[in-house]
This record gives sequence, C-alpha cells and structure tokens, in this order.
Amino acid sequence: MPEALPAGIPAVEGVHGLRALPAADGAVGAGDEHLRERRLESTTVWRGRFLDIRSDRVALPDGRETGREFLLHPGAVMVVPLLDADTAVVERQFRYPMDRAMLEFPAGKLDAGEAPWQCAVRELAEETGFRAAEWARAGVLHNAIAYSNEAIEVWFARGLAPGPARPDEGEFLEVGLGRLDDLEAAARDGRLTDAKTLIGLSWWRQWREGRWPLAWQALPPGGAAAPAA
Amino acid sequence: MPEALPAGIPAVEGVHGLRALPAADGAVGAGDEHLRERRLESTTVWRGRFLDIRSDRVALPDGRETGREFLLHPGAVMVVPLLDADTAVVERQFRYPMDRAMLEFPAGKLDAGEAPWQCAVRELAEETGFRAAEWARAGVLHNAIAYSNEAIEVWFARGLAPGPARPDEGEFLEVGLGRLDDLEAAARDGRLTDAKTLIGLSWWRQWREGRWPLAWQALPPGGAAAPAA
Repeated sequence: MPEALPAGIPAVEGVHGLRALPAADGAVGAGDEHLRERRLESTTVWRGRFLDIRSDRVALPDGRETGREFLLHPGAVMVVPLLDADTAVVERQFRYPMDRAMLEFPAGKLDAGEAPWQCAVRELAEETGFRAAEWARAGVLHNAIAYSNEAIEVWFARGLAPGPARPDEGEFLEVGLGRLDDLEAAARDGRLTDAKTLIGLSWWRQWREGRWPLAWQALPPGGAAAPAA
Repeated sequence: MPEALPAGIPAVEGVHGLRALPAADGAVGAGDEHLRERRLESTTVWRGRFLDIRSDRVALPDGRETGREFLLHPGAVMVVPLLDADTAVVERQFRYPMDRAMLEFPAGKLDAGEAPWQCAVRELAEETGFRAAEWARAGVLHNAIAYSNEAIEVWFARGLAPGPARPDEGEFLEVGLGRLDDLEAAARDGRLTDAKTLIGLSWWRQWREGRWPLAWQALPPGGAAAPAA
C-alpha cells in the first residue's frame, strides 16, 4: 500500500513507496510512528577511557520488545585541507582495530564543550601543522548508524600555511600531499577504504567540478566566536 | 625528513612526505614499523548479543604502552540495487543509536560462514523483495576505523525482479525508489547522511559517467559456488 511519494521518487509495482525523505535535520517525521522504536530502559554496560557502551531495552513499532546495543560518541570532525584546488594534505596512521596503516584526511574527536569548527582548526594544526585562512562547512555524515551515534562534521580548508605539528601523546602519523585524481585512483583500487575520506573525496570532486558550492569564510582568530555553520 | 614519495604525491616544504600509499590489500608495509602498534594483551570487556568489545594493551612505535578500545564486527555488505542506470531501490529505517529514520541502501551483517555475495543476495531479497540477474562487486569500505574493524563490501545489482520482502524479526523499514540526481540533492542538503550510502552514491555516479567500470556477473542459482570477487 504505497503512500504519497516525494517529488522525484516514483512508486514501483509490488514495492512499498518511499513515504518521504528524512527532514533536513534528520528528525523522525510526525508520520514515522510505524518505524519508531522507543526506549524502555537504558543500561551502561561498559565505560572505558573512550568507549561508552549501552544496552537498551526498546519497544518496537508493533509493541513487542527487543534489545539494542550501541556506543555513545562525542562526535568528530574531518578536514579536507586543500593546498590548491587539486591537491590536499593527507595522512597515514596505524589504526589498531584494522591492524593496518590507513590513508585518511585529518580528523579527530570533539573535546568537551568544543564546537566542530574549533575541533577542525585544532586537529588540522595538531596533526599536520597547517593553519588555514579560509574554511567551509561541507556537511555531516553518520558512519556507523547500526551501533554508534557518531556524527562526523566535514570542513574544507584552504589558504594553508605550514607550521609545526603537535600530535597527541601516542599518536604517530605521516603527513603528505595527495592529488584528487591519484586519491580517486587509490579509492578505485582499494588502497583507500576509509569511509569518511571516501566521502571527502566525493564532495571535493563535486566542488571541484562546480556542482556543489562551498561557502568559504575566515574563522575568528583565536577561536573567539563561532562562525555561521 | 621526507622519504621517497609515490608517483603523483609531491613533498612540500616543512611537511613530512607521504612514504607510500597502502598496499592493495591494506596491509601494513614492511617500512611501516615507525607507525605500527603491537598487541600486548587483549581483554573482552563486554560481549552482548551483537557487540563484542575489546580493551587491549598495546606497545606504541616508540616502545611506550597505551590502551586501545574497539569492537569486533563480523563484516557487512551493502547493495546498490539499480532499477535502471539512474534509479535505485532505497530504504528508510529507524536507527536506534541515531534516534531517527534514515535513508539508506539495503545492507546487513554477514551471517557466520556466509560469503559477502551470498549476504548481498540474501539481504536484498529479505529487505526489499528484489532478486537481481546481474551483480558487480564495487569495493570495500571501512566505516569506523578508530573503534571498529567493520568492513562493508559494496555490491551493485541490476536486472531486478520484485518479490515478497521478508525482513528480520523486529526489522521495520520502508522501501522505495530514488533517482541518482535526487539522492545526490538529498546528500547535499543533509537529508541523506549515512556514510555507506553516500559512498554508494559516489561510486554509482562514477560508474554512471563511465569513469569506473563494474564487472557484471550472474551469481550461481541457489548460491552454490562463489563467483570471482
């Protein structure tokens, strides 16, 4: 029984119609009661130095109960630091869960009370040494929606000036430059598989080709005030 | 002290050079000892119905010790089911950790002993009812490398025939169709933020524009034998 479809999304014989795209803020719409799960009880089953693991009891849309396990995450930021329109600063870092070094754009978790743009400025400087004259917020992605509430906000940076890097204690990484064509080739060949970095490449390409605009802005010196996001 | 750089990746003054792109299989290269962390001790700190949480003690490249927390994941598959070159089957599903319904391509975790292509065929049929005549493996992505070893293998499917959907117990979702242009607009506007789906859109666009080929193949009926991956 297909419901009303949004513009551009046709129904197909034998398939339930897509009722609506998610709202701009990702909230569950008023018509989503047939999908919504409700928290009955939430238990912290483990809290480590970084991971905060919950095991919740929830009510399904049909009233039955089930369990949901997930981790709470403070949120993160990724930076696509453009040396010029075709060249970005990239890193290689050993990722312990993967047991391998991976090619990535600079990124890091939000500190307590930190705005995403402040995190972007800090992580770029700490990990690569670069400071940027102009910044643009490209969007947000959710990378592990089945078991984490992590959101990664993506910022582009340009007008780069090199400086000393100050990686966190215990953080070892290599910094270098990658050209868009070469990084896309690495993605195609399976040499670059980090999800946030693949999305950064895609958005960079969309901007490079003039399809997706970026609203560049100077961030306040010293991080004194928040720019329009 | 920049080391030798791969073709197409120049050094820049004041920045360590990128020594090498990761090998095709993502393995740490022989020259990566300055990045590698070594497991000293591994402890399962919580094992739920789904999540398997580890807290390991590791040796850093400089010999100091630290802790790493992460979850072990069986791996997953995502399917980009193409009704035609410009239209795909998409879903909306409530994602409890996100507390919202999200727009996604069909996906699911590997069952024990299941090959990724078998998982792709199964999840597409269970969640959407569609069976596909032709399949193509597009690649793999790693979506939460800081705290999970999850790999999501991405398959494209075409030659779709509708049938009855059989979602898992407790799985409620809507199925519909999305056009590439409309889904890209949803990504640009922040209505589509799921990382694996954003990457599927990007790879679909690359294939659609003739830049990235896909090797289409018929999968064996009944899943009797593995196709070339």
